[in-house]
Amino acid sequence: MMITFVRMEFLQQTIRPTAIIDMDIAKSNLNRMHQKALDNQLSFRPHFKTHQSTVVGKLFQDAGIKKITVSSVMMAEYFASAGWDDITIAFPVNIREIDRINALAGCVELGLLVESEEVVCFLAQHIRHSIKLFIKGDAGYGRTGIEVENLAMMERLIQHTNSHKFLSFAGWLVHNGHTYHAKTKSEILSIHQCSQKKLMALYRWKQKHYPETIISLGDTPALSVSDSFQSIDELRPGNFIYHDVMQLVLGSCNAEQMAMSVACPVVAKHADRNEVVIYGGGVHLSKESITVGQQKIYGYIGRYTTSGWDLHSTTNYVRSLSQEHGIVKVEPELMDQINIGDLLAVFPVHSCMIPSLLGESYSTRGETISVMRNF
Amino acid sequence: MMITFVRMEFLQQTIRPTAIIDMDIAKSNLNRMHQKALDNQLSFRPHFKTHQSTVVGKLFQDAGIKKITVSSVMMAEYFASAGWDDITIAFPVNIREIDRINALAGCVELGLLVESEEVVCFLAQHIRHSIKLFIKGDAGYGRTGIEVENLAMMERLIQHTNSHKFLSFAGWLVHNGHTYHAKTKSEILSIHQCSQKKLMALYRWKQKHYPETIISLGDTPALSVSDSFQSIDELRPGNFIYHDVMQLVLGSCNAEQMAMSVACPVVAKHADRNEVVIYGGGVHLSKESITVGQQKIYGYIGRYTTSGWDLHSTTNYVRSLSQEHGIVKVEPELMDQINIGDLLAVFPVHSCMIPSLLGESYSTRGETISVMRNF
Repeated sequence: MMITFVRMEFLQQTIRPTAIIDMDIAKSNLNRMHQKALDNQLSFRPHFKTHQSTVVGKLFQDAGIKKITVSSVMMAEYFASAGWDDITIAFPVNIREIDRINALAGCVELGLLVESEEVVCFLAQHIRHSIKLFIKGDAGYGRTGIEVENLAMMERLIQHTNSHKFLSFAGWLVHNGHTYHAKTKSEILSIHQCSQKKLMALYRWKQKHYPETIISLGDTPALSVSDSFQSIDELRPGNFIYHDVMQLVLGSCNAEQMAMSVACPVVAKHADRNEVVIYGGGVHLSKESITVGQQKIYGYIGRYTTSGWDLHSTTNYVRSLSQEHGIVKVEPELMDQINIGDLLAVFPVHSCMIPSLLGESYSTRGETISVMRNF
Repeated sequence: MMITFVRMEFLQQTIRPTAIIDMDIAKSNLNRMHQKALDNQLSFRPHFKTHQSTVVGKLFQDAGIKKITVSSVMMAEYFASAGWDDITIAFPVNIREIDRINALAGCVELGLLVESEEVVCFLAQHIRHSIKLFIKGDAGYGRTGIEVENLAMMERLIQHTNSHKFLSFAGWLVHNGHTYHAKTKSEILSIHQCSQKKLMALYRWKQKHYPETIISLGDTPALSVSDSFQSIDELRPGNFIYHDVMQLVLGSCNAEQMAMSVACPVVAKHADRNEVVIYGGGVHLSKESITVGQQKIYGYIGRYTTSGWDLHSTTNYVRSLSQEHGIVKVEPELMDQINIGDLLAVFPVHSCMIPSLLGESYSTRGETISVMRNF
């Protein structure tokens, strides 16, 4: 029986690797996380680095969300020009961008991130509008930031910050990126609990001395699987809006909660080795991989249906990527259904990487979803 | 002593991750490979997927090169509109792009790549202008293509091809991508020799039956280290124009032959763990990595000088990348010289990934090097 494309018939015009977003799934992902913030009486400042789209931003607006996080000055400019006026850039201040930071700070309520006196000094000398300053706190990830136990250093930075008329200390941003290296849900929870414990002293100290400031936490894995947020004031997740194979493997989402796939044309079949070749390589899907069992995976494979997609089975996966080619392992049963010229749905390992690689995407209803241009 | 930026003073305006190209190095890389083709009386059809730039294309034009290879229909369109009129798309025909292929075939001498009767049939039915058809030959890589020993299959495809008025069989494209998995120069040579041996039967057969056709070989590692090309007619390398850390580690170039670096601002220093944080993550450098010894590397680190850059030492390297952050391991001696706000030169692992991530780049003389837009 032929599949008849009703809702998804726009895919017939798709000729190159193209990101497809299921806005219903995205909306339900948003509602779930937003509800968690409300239930725990936490501030909610979602990170927009995943979708990078004012169209998807509209979903957040409709849910009454007014405060956002971004990961670059360019992304702040993009959302500011779409009307967002309370933006925190959760990336250490790049002092070479001071002119653009000043321009932004003149237009929106801007939060910036620091982790050294050197940068506080630089801002004190160069900033021309009021900004909120956050300290990057390291609660065990070890990428960057000041160890959250180091209260003496915090105190020094806060004093320094608050002594300048345009700088006001606003709190801490913490990102436990090491939850992404967990192998199981319980490992995520244990990293989260350990971080909450580490943060408790800082939390009590700031409640006493700086009660107006906040501790904000960012990682989707922990925020998805945990309900215990005793040492923080704000949730700042990004990836949860789309999820991806990484989150699926970690156990922080299920297959029905993945809101992004990339439609990739089949260009060759190798039935003898159960492989098909797709137009879809590292320049489209990024080289982000995850190891599942012994197998390095660059994406799972599904099929488009009349109303969206099915994740066929995790035994069908992208096994390698070169610049433009993807090599897909498929079960014989799926192989029989695939023809050259078909589109396969590839669920990317890391959805945040896709918008800057593929540009505008489409909803499963065929609406264009514009994204920020990276250059 | 302060370094005075004479030739490189344009870098003072660089605020975000930006690719810098040393055109003198690129030119000398080009001359060396071109000379190798001439010395071996081989056709030379360089692959433009690495630089993706009409500005860099000018170097090839100046060297008298008229035939090029690209990896997508979009890239063929980009170079065709810049005046290149003999273009082979070294990627299996994506039948969904037939309208654009037809438009191209009406303007330029177009070579296409097939590996199945299904696609030959499709082209026979849909192509409206003369094209040259190449068969993708697999000489051991196992990514895609027809095994080069399978002469019966070749014969069938050739007969089929030549029976259609717009299709003319032109030869074989072979890419030994498995040289990229080699650990040493001698391993590259042994893969190359094995492939040359495999190709010999095909070469003799086609000399006898199809003497006007060619066998074209693509991989930069083998073409760089070998001087023995007895079973092929054409060199089709791409990466050699810039090289990168991958080629350096493989031994197919030396440090002075790397023509691309990415200028990345330093945003944080962690002297206690010999790390600096740069603005330069997976969205800028790609997540392509290579393992050197026990260490996964995402790029080597150098410093900009008055006239270009120095690869400081391979003990300074990018140890991890997240979306926008790069974490760089630096020797204490280099750490002492680095200030927040400095630009570090990052030598990427895979230079072909960079143009579509960063867009236009600059020469070390400050000239703009435009590149194809990927979307």
